[in-house]
Amino acid sequence: MSYETTDQALSALKKLEGTMAAYDHAMGVLYLDATTAAPSESWEGRGKTMEVLSQITYDLLAREENGELLAFLEAHSGELDSQTRREVEMLRKRYDEIHRVPAEEYVAYSVLLNDAQNVWNKAKLNDDFDAFAPYLEKIVTFNRKFAGYYHPEMKPYDALLNEYEEGMTMETLDVFFAQLRKAIVPLLEKVQSAPQIDDSFLFRHYGAEKQRVFSDYLMEVLGIDRTHCAIAETEHPYTTEFNNKDVRITTHYYENNLVSSMFSVIHEGGHALYELGCDDKYNYTVLAGGVSMGVHESQSRFYENLIGRSRAFVHAIFPKVKELFPEQLADVDETMFYRAINKAQPSLIRTEADELTYCLHIMVRYEIEKRLIDGTLAVKDVPAAWKALYKQYLGVDVPNDREGCLQDSHWSGGGIGYFPSYALGSAYGPQMLHEMEKDLGDIWADVSKGDLSRVTRWLREHIHHHASFIKPGELFRQVCGEFDPRYYTDYLTKKYTELYDL
Amino acid sequence: MSYETTDQALSALKKLEGTMAAYDHAMGVLYLDATTAAPSESWEGRGKTMEVLSQITYDLLAREENGELLAFLEAHSGELDSQTRREVEMLRKRYDEIHRVPAEEYVAYSVLLNDAQNVWNKAKLNDDFDAFAPYLEKIVTFNRKFAGYYHPEMKPYDALLNEYEEGMTMETLDVFFAQLRKAIVPLLEKVQSAPQIDDSFLFRHYGAEKQRVFSDYLMEVLGIDRTHCAIAETEHPYTTEFNNKDVRITTHYYENNLVSSMFSVIHEGGHALYELGCDDKYNYTVLAGGVSMGVHESQSRFYENLIGRSRAFVHAIFPKVKELFPEQLADVDETMFYRAINKAQPSLIRTEADELTYCLHIMVRYEIEKRLIDGTLAVKDVPAAWKALYKQYLGVDVPNDREGCLQDSHWSGGGIGYFPSYALGSAYGPQMLHEMEKDLGDIWADVSKGDLSRVTRWLREHIHHHASFIKPGELFRQVCGEFDPRYYTDYLTKKYTELYDL
Repeated sequence: MSYETTDQALSALKKLEGTMAAYDHAMGVLYLDATTAAPSESWEGRGKTMEVLSQITYDLLAREENGELLAFLEAHSGELDSQTRREVEMLRKRYDEIHRVPAEEYVAYSVLLNDAQNVWNKAKLNDDFDAFAPYLEKIVTFNRKFAGYYHPEMKPYDALLNEYEEGMTMETLDVFFAQLRKAIVPLLEKVQSAPQIDDSFLFRHYGAEKQRVFSDYLMEVLGIDRTHCAIAETEHPYTTEFNNKDVRITTHYYENNLVSSMFSVIHEGGHALYELGCDDKYNYTVLAGGVSMGVHESQSRFYENLIGRSRAFVHAIFPKVKELFPEQLADVDETMFYRAINKAQPSLIRTEADELTYCLHIMVRYEIEKRLIDGTLAVKDVPAAWKALYKQYLGVDVPNDREGCLQDSHWSGGGIGYFPSYALGSAYGPQMLHEMEKDLGDIWADVSKGDLSRVTRWLREHIHHHASFIKPGELFRQVCGEFDPRYYTDYLTKKYTELYDL
Repeated sequence: MSYETTDQALSALKKLEGTMAAYDHAMGVLYLDATTAAPSESWEGRGKTMEVLSQITYDLLAREENGELLAFLEAHSGELDSQTRREVEMLRKRYDEIHRVPAEEYVAYSVLLNDAQNVWNKAKLNDDFDAFAPYLEKIVTFNRKFAGYYHPEMKPYDALLNEYEEGMTMETLDVFFAQLRKAIVPLLEKVQSAPQIDDSFLFRHYGAEKQRVFSDYLMEVLGIDRTHCAIAETEHPYTTEFNNKDVRITTHYYENNLVSSMFSVIHEGGHALYELGCDDKYNYTVLAGGVSMGVHESQSRFYENLIGRSRAFVHAIFPKVKELFPEQLADVDETMFYRAINKAQPSLIRTEADELTYCLHIMVRYEIEKRLIDGTLAVKDVPAAWKALYKQYLGVDVPNDREGCLQDSHWSGGGIGYFPSYALGSAYGPQMLHEMEKDLGDIWADVSKGDLSRVTRWLREHIHHHASFIKPGELFRQVCGEFDPRYYTDYLTKKYTELYDL
């Protein structure tokens, strides 16, 4: 296929992007269905369908004629508008990457991941790491191989990091995590020797039906348009989007825990606001949706922690919380609630971790992933390494693998290199808040009235709006200047010093 | 593409069928999502995705190389096993049909149907036939045109009937419906002059939460394996299947009606049992799933009416019904319940109609479809024709189009020619029951204990098992001999004579 005019090539480009978007949508809905509604023993047929569609989407992107199309458009780059130039750049990156993966490996990997999800689910349930180990082994091997295909010039783990946060390296992360540890570890020690906060009332009985009403209320406070965003229930909360008019979040209701779903909804709601805020013009192109995992997590954790765990937010929502759960919270006031949802203590489960210890959980995973990929840690030794690192970083003894190295879904989903994004996102947030407050002045009077409109408008204008048009590092610099983790460590220090009266 | 060996062609056939099955699955899940979980204003992106996938699935089937493949396999038919021969025959039918539809019309029609669903939803809500009329107009025009493409040798409406029940014609249906009317109309007159049954207790307040528990119980009595069959909630109940290990039914809970969802679950459960009972060997081929709408409805209505509205079934489930709704049914006994769920009276809504009047609702639609397709009725005159026919057949005055010609989703979904299947299916059932009782003897002792295993086993062996391997007419004859509607009219006469003590 050769192109005679730029218009001809542009229409081929639009067709390619539209087709890719349609397959993404279809496969996204298959995944959503699998996790929310599908009967338990229906994975076989879904596996076959995913195998067929994976092969087709592989062919769709990897075929040689796309190379010609991209080369033509690159050669005529002067005639393209900036959006199209960026589309070509993104497609080039994906084309080059996928083009280097042999089709049979790509499909075998998709099939492996479909199986691995099921195996992991059961392995976690049965606390049976050995059942999952052969799958993790293969996933690690594939990832190491893919890293070499993607960026033979990089260290393999750097190449994987680059998939989630373009430009990120172990060198940068090692420094970043060292800085965090230096601030967090002594702070946590002080917190632990201070009088402890009573949060036991958060773990009374909270019926799922009422928690569902609470979710609807939180979505309303977050200003999420429900005609474009639905909530479903899954084992592990997540957000998925099909376009900026169709976003889904999920949560999980535990009847002995009020805050697990509450902060899932606010966290996933933050992801949803990012997706819903993307400009329409990027829909059905490769620029649709958030630009990186790090920036995505910066938004979800902005809403979850900087807003959701703030005094002002608690002030806004506490009357409703009391109204929904009058008996469970009869002896609880606003300050007690605020302190309870911010209680810091080393624990086993990342997703339930408090703001202060959260990044320590990430560091454990980061260390293990680094070693798995560079081959200095064998899969069979992951449970022992996990336990040793939890002891070292968090001071806790991990009693089993279910609450240890089997707790997260990321590895079974192939997401090696993803975890550091959570820590980066956490650290991006306070620096964004600093810039926001420069522009808007005090935002907390609004927040304490449950009015997040100015906050969201600012984030939409500076971040959401751009979808994937601006690279993550560049976007961050454009909004905040150079990244400096000190905004984050200062924020934590101030918050926990006040909270525990240190 | 030409084939050198039969094995080569067979592997191309398997690949084609597997790919078609994957797209069916993906598009089926998109539809399921749209009707169960999607946010209300998300249709635009789904429309784009469906447009892309419709174009692709059109190309997949219509492409010339399939013609060569089928011709090769037909020429080597002696080397094929009987299953493969039937696969080739089915594909040939679909290939010839689709091949005659120009691609742009096929895609335009898919897009039209996506839009029409939304327009119809709103039109129904607002009782606004004029809003829907232009869409129905286009749907009728497309169907008339497609009928000519499919079977130029047939009358257009016969060609459409043939899509849902191979071999069915207006000539046959006119006779069939006349026979039904001859039996039903005088029976209904007698029923109406007999003392009326009190069914008012069915319309007390029945909370959705308890109705959900009731659904689970009914699924258990039906013997449906929930690890392969889930229930969701939609405006209009339906069944969809992705393969014989992944079937979904939907229902709708009305809190002022105990039986609407109850009989939806049993009806859709009947469809589900058919799909779940198909032999594994047909999965991922064009022979997967039930063979025709008429046979499908024979199964759903078998469970709904012959079983679900029988004295024996009521005896089995009534204790559970009382347990779930003790206050609402405090003054109700088993016989009252049995009589109430069988109360016959002319009414407006097909899906809520009793067994006796049900087919009269179908006849109204049949008459209107015939006239729409042969051009003797204009779309703008449908409401008036509807009202006149309801008055003539059922003696009722239709107060508005919401409860009149806008009530069903079939036309907005393109399903012209589908309705007669409901009547055929209803009439097939009693003849199947007759054969079943010849083989099994009395089944009602089992049913009255809530044990449907022998009934379902018989249907599985004689019907479900075969999926689409045997043509509908042939399958029916193989099981029951010649179709004779008298089994149905005799059944209705006996049941309603006893019930109303005529």
